[in-house]
Amino acid sequence: MLKELKRKVWQANLELKKQGLVIHTWGNASGIDREKQLIVIKPSGVEYDELQPEDMVVLDLDGNQVEGKLRPSSDTPTHLVLYKMFPSIGGVVHTHSTCATAWAQAQRPIPPFGTTHADYFYGDVPCTRPLKAEEIEGQYEAETGHVIVETFQGKEPLYVPGVLVANHGPFTWGKDAAEAVYHAVVLEEVAKMAMYSCGLQGSLAPIDRVLLDKHFMRKHGKNAYYGQSKK
Amino acid sequence: MLKELKRKVWQANLELKKQGLVIHTWGNASGIDREKQLIVIKPSGVEYDELQPEDMVVLDLDGNQVEGKLRPSSDTPTHLVLYKMFPSIGGVVHTHSTCATAWAQAQRPIPPFGTTHADYFYGDVPCTRPLKAEEIEGQYEAETGHVIVETFQGKEPLYVPGVLVANHGPFTWGKDAAEAVYHAVVLEEVAKMAMYSCGLQGSLAPIDRVLLDKHFMRKHGKNAYYGQSKK
Amino acid sequence: MLKELKRKVWQANLELKKQGLVIHTWGNASGIDREKQLIVIKPSGVEYDELQPEDMVVLDLDGNQVEGKLRPSSDTPTHLVLYKMFPSIGGVVHTHSTCATAWAQAQRPIPPFGTTHADYFYGDVPCTRPLKAEEIEGQYEAETGHVIVETFQGKEPLYVPGVLVANHGPFTWGKDAAEAVYHAVVLEEVAKMAMYSCGLQGSLAPIDRVLLDKHFMRKHGKNAYYGQSKK
Amino acid sequence: MLKELKRKVWQANLELKKQGLVIHTWGNASGIDREKQLIVIKPSGVEYDELQPEDMVVLDLDGNQVEGKLRPSSDTPTHLVLYKMFPSIGGVVHTHSTCATAWAQAQRPIPPFGTTHADYFYGDVPCTRPLKAEEIEGQYEAETGHVIVETFQGKEPLYVPGVLVANHGPFTWGKDAAEAVYHAVVLEEVAKMAMYSCGLQGSLAPIDRVLLDKHFMRKHGKNAYYGQSKK
Repeated sequence: MLKELKRKVWQANLELKKQGLVIHTWGNASGIDREKQLIVIKPSGVEYDELQPEDMVVLDLDGNQVEGKLRPSSDTPTHLVLYKMFPSIGGVVHTHSTCATAWAQAQRPIPPFGTTHADYFYGDVPCTRPLKAEEIEGQYEAETGHVIVETFQGKEPLYVPGVLVANHGPFTWGKDAAEAVYHAVVLEEVAKMAMYSCGLQGSLAPIDRVLLDKHFMRKHGKNAYYGQSKK
Repeated sequence: MLKELKRKVWQANLELKKQGLVIHTWGNASGIDREKQLIVIKPSGVEYDELQPEDMVVLDLDGNQVEGKLRPSSDTPTHLVLYKMFPSIGGVVHTHSTCATAWAQAQRPIPPFGTTHADYFYGDVPCTRPLKAEEIEGQYEAETGHVIVETFQGKEPLYVPGVLVANHGPFTWGKDAAEAVYHAVVLEEVAKMAMYSCGLQGSLAPIDRVLLDKHFMRKHGKNAYYGQSKK
Repeated sequence: MLKELKRKVWQANLELKKQGLVIHTWGNASGIDREKQLIVIKPSGVEYDELQPEDMVVLDLDGNQVEGKLRPSSDTPTHLVLYKMFPSIGGVVHTHSTCATAWAQAQRPIPPFGTTHADYFYGDVPCTRPLKAEEIEGQYEAETGHVIVETFQGKEPLYVPGVLVANHGPFTWGKDAAEAVYHAVVLEEVAKMAMYSCGLQGSLAPIDRVLLDKHFMRKHGKNAYYGQSKK
Repeated sequence: MLKELKRKVWQANLELKKQGLVIHTWGNASGIDREKQLIVIKPSGVEYDELQPEDMVVLDLDGNQVEGKLRPSSDTPTHLVLYKMFPSIGGVVHTHSTCATAWAQAQRPIPPFGTTHADYFYGDVPCTRPLKAEEIEGQYEAETGHVIVETFQGKEPLYVPGVLVANHGPFTWGKDAAEAVYHAVVLEEVAKMAMYSCGLQGSLAPIDRVLLDKHFMRKHGKNAYYGQSKK
């Protein structure tokens, strides 16, 4: 069942480790089959080098385990909320990558300080509000999803394909699991560059809207002209 | 004698190097057989790539060398004090990993700024007081153990499986040598993230108790639900 | 056509990745055949490990594609302006390397703080002014070239073989593509050292002119005595 | 001639690259045969992966080239002054390693902030005064040696086996070329830790003399008890 999607999600999880975004088992990638309304996600706490494609867990959007012997990632309810509320996304990634997490811990959004940021994130990478005590003590992982959705109210998630959860770390997404990983790599690099820039210039202002528009649209708009696949 | 434990302690020492926590011979891992009351530790000043399982040194808890031709790590008396005073631990690691050592040199405990920290350390990673002149000039390595024990008075060491020795560097522990290494990796990463967060937000407060509880207990309490092995 | 130049430009692009200057496809190297007035450049958005020498794109100095099935790098117009306006250069590189980009985002030139800098850059690595709205909305990539040329007015580009484009990132150049890559590596390292030095000493002054002269001329002047190839 | 010493000096040079202390050809290691009064040093500007043991250059202490077809490192006169003025040393290394160079550029000595430093450097790693214009314009490389010697007036160089040359970078030494490399690795790590500690605690004081004594003597005094080789 979903053999191809399992392989892709498995590969996305391995890529997180290979890209240096994940220590131990601190990360997870998932993908969705929108037609079948099923998601595939990494099992909880399994070392990356022991992971096999067939270990991937299949769940429906209510969180019922449809296939797989292992328990799914403990962050699964967050992924489920994002798939339900963000219909345009096809893959989700969570990491504790160093610099993105440093911003999340500092509870600061990452402003667009340059074109590297603008090429992928059409504005600030926002930071959620901290969860309330009752949210933490309740359905914590689902509430983490809800506070992300609250942060994106009225925004298209593919225009800013990532978020910092306050005191926690980054979530990213994309049209599939591979693109969510791609964006996790970008977010970590953008977080590092922005941190260094703040060190060099304490009162740094974000770039002008026109430069933000230019770069984001160069890669994403209907007139995009970066790469080979777009016409 | 203790062939399996020697192999595990040897492997733990190699892992320290592989994980980038150790330069030259600046680190050591040990394990204990609680039944036989014997510890196994790395020999002093031997390069990691020359190290063999049979080079590991066996000592009793009074520090008498029971087996092994090589001199044990010069930090052995610290390990012995920790095994004697912390009955719940089964492995100890000492490194001079960069960021944890930077905090130890700054004589600052690492506050829990996020869930990465809270997943493993149930509160501050404390920093010991500096040793007194007479402690340094006396049984220095044993006194290093005593000041750690003093710092943990009334606390369960497995709830905060690591410490910063002021002006020196980190010690970590766990249920065995492998877990002590695991915690050494976590501590270095947590130290790096916390340092970066302080740079981004000078007056950063630790996370709320309720988030600390949630994350630590998600992995460690009797109702833990992270990973595969717990029920 | 231009088989040897294609191979060299291809190799220069791979080297950018190998040296850790490039994430994903964020970089490009080109070279020129001054006699034939043709440039060879990387295609746009192709992963480095799929890139073959024959994928390199050949263009004339007006930007007409002379050979190659793939679309050239979106930054091609910047390269073209530099080749037209800087007759002494034979290769151009653009990256978003972390520390050089951090300075570009902070809109600060990098002062010569030491001999590492002076060995390659005969003075500040300048930072361009930010582009104006009409420049961004017009021929953006060509205007990026023009603002670099404006920044070097009256200067020999081989004496300072690199620049920071404000809010964007570094461009470097050299007598060929390989040397442009070499300078990209130097610039990233010099940017990192300078950033760290500023952290250690907030009001740091550049080195004296005499030391700058000594080091730059030791490697570049007619009396150069570094290396084997000069007499 | 000096076949064994050439092999050791060659290996020391390769180790500089392997340890990540050197970019391009920015470093050199040398060794001396005190009996024959001859030194062996790396040739100037040759890439590390092309370097062969037989490429090493042999010179007498007056700088006359005794063997070798290639031109010796341009820093040779600095090495020669150190060998002549520091009779206890047998190997010298020069690098532009990132963090040590950052301190050199900031013209700050590195205070002993912890035991990692104290294990190898018995006090501050000093920073020389900047060279005067006439020294730079005169016998620059020899003057670099003289300002190092001036900085160590009345001190045993093996007790602090390294220095920061202001605006330039580190030199280290040891009983042979391998130990000089070993100290170059230590110095870079100590420089990084100290930089991070200063970021965490702006007004950090050096460690107490008694801790400095304890650690340095644990590894170096006649009662040293670290490692296997000492009795």
